[in-house]
Amino acid sequence: MRLATVRVDAETTRAAVVDADSWVLLEAGDVGALIARDGWREEVATALRTGADRVAVADAEFVRPLLAPSKIFCCGLNYRDHIVETGRDVPAHPTLFAKFADTLADPTADIVVRGSSKVDWEAELAVVVGTTLRDADRDEAAAGILGYTVANDVSMRDWQSRTLQWLQGKAWDASTPIGPSIVTADALEPRDGLRIECLVDDEVMQSSSTAELVFDAAELVSYVSGFTTLRPGDIVLTGTPGGVGMGRSPQRWIADGETVITRIEGIGELRNRFTVTPGDDR
Amino acid sequence: MRLATVRVDAETTRAAVVDADSWVLLEAGDVGALIARDGWREEVATALRTGADRVAVADAEFVRPLLAPSKIFCCGLNYRDHIVETGRDVPAHPTLFAKFADTLADPTADIVVRGSSKVDWEAELAVVVGTTLRDADRDEAAAGILGYTVANDVSMRDWQSRTLQWLQGKAWDASTPIGPSIVTADALEPRDGLRIECLVDDEVMQSSSTAELVFDAAELVSYVSGFTTLRPGDIVLTGTPGGVGMGRSPQRWIADGETVITRIEGIGELRNRFTVTPGDDR
Repeated sequence: MRLATVRVDAETTRAAVVDADSWVLLEAGDVGALIARDGWREEVATALRTGADRVAVADAEFVRPLLAPSKIFCCGLNYRDHIVETGRDVPAHPTLFAKFADTLADPTADIVVRGSSKVDWEAELAVVVGTTLRDADRDEAAAGILGYTVANDVSMRDWQSRTLQWLQGKAWDASTPIGPSIVTADALEPRDGLRIECLVDDEVMQSSSTAELVFDAAELVSYVSGFTTLRPGDIVLTGTPGGVGMGRSPQRWIADGETVITRIEGIGELRNRFTVTPGDDR
Repeated sequence: MRLATVRVDAETTRAAVVDADSWVLLEAGDVGALIARDGWREEVATALRTGADRVAVADAEFVRPLLAPSKIFCCGLNYRDHIVETGRDVPAHPTLFAKFADTLADPTADIVVRGSSKVDWEAELAVVVGTTLRDADRDEAAAGILGYTVANDVSMRDWQSRTLQWLQGKAWDASTPIGPSIVTADALEPRDGLRIECLVDDEVMQSSSTAELVFDAAELVSYVSGFTTLRPGDIVLTGTPGGVGMGRSPQRWIADGETVITRIEGIGELRNRFTVTPGDDR
């Protein structure tokens, strides 16, 4: 199953499920509101049988699938090849930091960054939580995953490195594109190895496989649930592979006007044009 | 003005404002819901004139004043004396990390920690945001502060030090007590120097002054608003003074059954008994 949140008009969005060459609109403002309801899978099945509100796939305008996640966790240093490029050892525990709902951007949004001179890309597999989880073991965590989507953990490296904690370089409003759709976990297994890529103005900067993940989706969800509650629509970004701008020689940053494409095989593609006003003097 | 959220019955809480020896109950479930409304100051003034629903100060049972903040920022390394004890230099920028609404606990809650052997205290002045702020300069930020309350940024040091990022030692559900009430900014200026203290089983562990803050409330709020939106009810914890367990020789952790008192002159006091089950093998 593939779920998304599509724009219906200037003020309205709807959760939707794909059915051949159309998206069937559901009675919820986004995927998060949909899956928070008991019985949502039956609602989707009914809509697929009867749904009159449809949008052709070619006409669909996607917004970020989750409009109001209560928690977004991000894992750093989680691809073996990226760990090598930072010069670190494979970690015993996942390195975790947070983003906010405000940090997310739509899958084709223009990303406006004002006040950073080191804007970097980080293609990431995003895990969407499907149920309430606390102290979940690996099997419970795996069963609680709704599915997977694509994200780019865009990072302002000058701000990220100002202090020991990365948050201020990672949580800029409307800077992390995500989407366009969620493939449910029954249809996809990232451990099998999905090609994950990031292109800047058509140059391939990152190209790896989700099989390179040190901590996989179920492990991360289980680990986080050991100290806090995860709820339907919460998101765990699983880290980025090698090839980020910071790790290149010479280093390379996203320039004003460049377009970043982020894609994962079998899931989808983000396409975001950047408007960058340099400077980090705030 | 002093605001709080008080328990009315098992299922109900109400925002309240103090009036001499009673709390006047307001038409909102917590202070966050109250201040999110335009005209809330007029509502409070009307309630103070006419409010029939009152609870005697001696009978009030407080819950955390903000039940659902959308963002909680915490500043590390922000008291000159604590910076000295960690062996670091006075920073050029605030060190920021996040907590979640789930991380907060009521001001007299039992704090249950299962799976850490290094539970530490961090008495902190908490700033409550009163209006929506983005790219606020210092004066705008100062004008956007609702007021101040007391928090303890309880930290699981074994988890905090597992990786470079502190979040997993800082964001355990129901581990950060906050409250009991908010003193509005017109009535209090932390830069003037308020005594801030933490006691563990009646032993004074921290005793400093909010005049020791490197980045004060307005600076922190302004800085954060430079990259993300702050909204009414959001919280900024301003960091802790010297005297934490990690910085002592020998190191000292909160033991099972101990009671931690956190207090700031002119604001209030938290009193939390701890139930600690050691171990960090998850």
